[in-house]
Amino acid sequence: MTTQKIREDDYVLFYLSQRKTYMVKVEKGKTFHTHKGFIKFDDLIGKEYGSKILSSLGVEFVALKPLLRDYIIKSVRKTQITYPKDIALIVMFSGIGPGSRVVEAGTGTGALTTALAHFVKSNGRVYSYEIREEFLKTARKNLKRAGLIDFVELKNKDVSVGIDESDVDAVILDLATPWLIVSHAYAALKPCGTIVSFSPTIDQVVKTVEALKENNFVDIETVECLMRRMQTERGKTRPQTLMTGHTGYITFARKAMKPKA
Amino acid sequence: MTTQKIREDDYVLFYLSQRKTYMVKVEKGKTFHTHKGFIKFDDLIGKEYGSKILSSLGVEFVALKPLLRDYIIKSVRKTQITYPKDIALIVMFSGIGPGSRVVEAGTGTGALTTALAHFVKSNGRVYSYEIREEFLKTARKNLKRAGLIDFVELKNKDVSVGIDESDVDAVILDLATPWLIVSHAYAALKPCGTIVSFSPTIDQVVKTVEALKENNFVDIETVECLMRRMQTERGKTRPQTLMTGHTGYITFARKAMKPKA
Amino acid sequence: MTTQKIREDDYVLFYLSQRKTYMVKVEKGKTFHTHKGFIKFDDLIGKEYGSKILSSLGVEFVALKPLLRDYIIKSVRKTQITYPKDIALIVMFSGIGPGSRVVEAGTGTGALTTALAHFVKSNGRVYSYEIREEFLKTARKNLKRAGLIDFVELKNKDVSVGIDESDVDAVILDLATPWLIVSHAYAALKPCGTIVSFSPTIDQVVKTVEALKENNFVDIETVECLMRRMQTERGKTRPQTLMTGHTGYITFARKAMKPKA
Amino acid sequence: MTTQKIREDDYVLFYLSQRKTYMVKVEKGKTFHTHKGFIKFDDLIGKEYGSKILSSLGVEFVALKPLLRDYIIKSVRKTQITYPKDIALIVMFSGIGPGSRVVEAGTGTGALTTALAHFVKSNGRVYSYEIREEFLKTARKNLKRAGLIDFVELKNKDVSVGIDESDVDAVILDLATPWLIVSHAYAALKPCGTIVSFSPTIDQVVKTVEALKENNFVDIETVECLMRRMQTERGKTRPQTLMTGHTGYITFARKAMKPKA
Repeated sequence: MTTQKIREDDYVLFYLSQRKTYMVKVEKGKTFHTHKGFIKFDDLIGKEYGSKILSSLGVEFVALKPLLRDYIIKSVRKTQITYPKDIALIVMFSGIGPGSRVVEAGTGTGALTTALAHFVKSNGRVYSYEIREEFLKTARKNLKRAGLIDFVELKNKDVSVGIDESDVDAVILDLATPWLIVSHAYAALKPCGTIVSFSPTIDQVVKTVEALKENNFVDIETVECLMRRMQTERGKTRPQTLMTGHTGYITFARKAMKPKA
Repeated sequence: MTTQKIREDDYVLFYLSQRKTYMVKVEKGKTFHTHKGFIKFDDLIGKEYGSKILSSLGVEFVALKPLLRDYIIKSVRKTQITYPKDIALIVMFSGIGPGSRVVEAGTGTGALTTALAHFVKSNGRVYSYEIREEFLKTARKNLKRAGLIDFVELKNKDVSVGIDESDVDAVILDLATPWLIVSHAYAALKPCGTIVSFSPTIDQVVKTVEALKENNFVDIETVECLMRRMQTERGKTRPQTLMTGHTGYITFARKAMKPKA
Repeated sequence: MTTQKIREDDYVLFYLSQRKTYMVKVEKGKTFHTHKGFIKFDDLIGKEYGSKILSSLGVEFVALKPLLRDYIIKSVRKTQITYPKDIALIVMFSGIGPGSRVVEAGTGTGALTTALAHFVKSNGRVYSYEIREEFLKTARKNLKRAGLIDFVELKNKDVSVGIDESDVDAVILDLATPWLIVSHAYAALKPCGTIVSFSPTIDQVVKTVEALKENNFVDIETVECLMRRMQTERGKTRPQTLMTGHTGYITFARKAMKPKA
Repeated sequence: MTTQKIREDDYVLFYLSQRKTYMVKVEKGKTFHTHKGFIKFDDLIGKEYGSKILSSLGVEFVALKPLLRDYIIKSVRKTQITYPKDIALIVMFSGIGPGSRVVEAGTGTGALTTALAHFVKSNGRVYSYEIREEFLKTARKNLKRAGLIDFVELKNKDVSVGIDESDVDAVILDLATPWLIVSHAYAALKPCGTIVSFSPTIDQVVKTVEALKENNFVDIETVECLMRRMQTERGKTRPQTLMTGHTGYITFARKAMKPKA
């Protein structure tokens, strides 16, 4: 793995408590300010990741190395991001891994793109379609920050017109009208390739599943995932009161070959 | 990616319906028998993955290429396997990816091992501890079948005595007494490394979280994940009646550095 | 309250364990047989409810007095019953109580009818519509057993033709096409009366909600309820593995008055 | 049922939308003000419940008659109230109904008390214990408003010292240390009577279940209930994003008779 010393221009996740973390870029000569005092970046450079640092007010912070999930949660965004729990299932069910070639649409601000790039690197590739240019800019920024931009081709194109790539391992859809992309996905996928679609409404799911059946996909499955946090403390352990009740449904399917005429 | 023609000794996932799939090895000269008729493997060899095949009774099967999730669900097992939904979260939250070095304990029949190997290949490595020899045999079989044995070191050792490796990216625990391994995990992890523990009972969670706090881990979080399938059919769409109510809790934490004396 | 001595012709709930309970009628001179030995009813008569009884094999049973929920769960049935958790919400949200006049359709085997009768007695009344005569027979048997038949009028009539009653407090629908009954329910309800509909599919919910909006109902709300059991034992506490993932959606609404022309 | 004309001093639930409702007392000569204009109560008196009323700004409100659930949700409170979904299950599982005699502790601000009184009236009775006098005042106000004070005896007493009543049908506990009350509940209950306990933490559940086992209770069961709202609109139907992840666990049990020495 990479060295664990904190260097200039690295991103650091300052951990104060389970509810308070800060993702910041380490800039020489500059200072990180919070309501709990400030920390000089120069005092940080050269320290090991995981080190505890006292702020000017004597409050302890831990300088963590951001992980995939941190890059996703702390991504610069202009829209609702796909949740880590859903990204986890999308990755697992899609069957992708190191070396996979994946088409994604739309990019949004790049949260899912970041995860796909993380898992297909270093000889795989993500082709990500997005028609809104301002989203692509944000996605590019997020991917650079996570050190994953080299594994992604960001495409300012309308995926409903068609997919340029062929023989890809998976097509991942996170857009308003996934059913319109299903025939393009079929054309782009290698035999037995996987399609995954994420949608908040049931109506989107029904239309997408119908399009999948019409387009010779099999092994079609739709799930939803509820994640709940626990408050763990001896004598007071309980699930958390706050919980996200719904993000979206995830639909999976696989390309079957058309019988030859 | 690898070629998509079905070859001798490949594993194929015969898809009949959402409820009926069969994982079989393609053996020259042999025949696959089901209650829906038989299929000769020789008729399959050389066909593309995703092809539709008629059995002797005229029933259509699709010859799918098994994905990670299929290898997990269809693994040979002697014990309860970790569920794909939990494996997905464990992988996502652990921050591992291609190239990571990961310690796992215990191996069990290798379901989680298979996923870890899939995501760290090809220059990463999984060190998996298991004291029960018969489990290791099954795990070896499952990993071979999934083509991932080269990325795993199966160790017939008691992890509660200590972990041989050092400077690893993550330690993943799926055993009855995870709290006993926490200090060994701290020693084995690189600075800022991740520990993940999967446990069915709340008492295991409470003890493990206490051990994590005592051992200088931070960013400690426990979650549970409920996954529900949808039956999607226009006019009849509804969640499925059957659902797994509980598998286990997943606890995550990160190694902070001890303040120097 | 009523006396607590067990009498001839009472129903008793024999409790062996959380998983094994038996609802039986106490018949003089007869014997109750299980795989854990037999119990003579004559030994039971005159004992207090809650008494512990040894079977011929020395196994301890507790002779419990059946409660509303027991009558529901142990009802004679030919169809899927409405679940106690859903019945509980239907009763709570409908606003009914002692003295309420309630229309129900369809009766089915009378599980929900039993609960409605239990809560409106003794000066309220349930009018329950069912077109299938064999269901009415079973419902009558279940209501008699629970001692609630006097508070119910079972009607072998097609509710889609209309509701005979007027000025009722609530209309409760548990049938395949609730949206067809909405205008009849409006006519039968007193001003500000409540309608509640229970349906397994989302499509039924959407059609019913649309009919409610068109028919001048307000305060429309749809919920689903997931109930999970805990296994509670010091050191081994955890949610149960088995769980019902879906029963149905419950929709509530209230009759607003039409503006006068 | 009662007449449906709105009278002076009645409570009315002004319904503006699913998210905006107001519980107000109808006071002669006074005016109800909202950000959507005002309504003169004198214009309301004599109208039927369920009537639509225009505010001074021409916005339509519906004057609903508050139901049990409305009285609970809109209760004056100084503490977290028990949720209607939990109250529904507590009532259903306790087996109480018209005529039941029920002990409750603690009263809190009377949300659960209101529901218990609603279902046991008019010849049943709720005995509700609370040591904090200011809570009792609020509870009294809430019970009066709901028209249910006549069926409740509010007792400013410490239930951990003992329960005055005997031969009651059910004891309902919603307090911090329910396990301390279990033996008192056993003494107060009639044979085969029901105890129900509501607790937010797992540790409370474990201690209570142990006390129940030690005190000769049987048929012990603990559940939790998750309720999720649906947003129902053709083409956009989906579960709501917001959801309460946890309120508390509900434990039920029944008093078995002690074997005679």
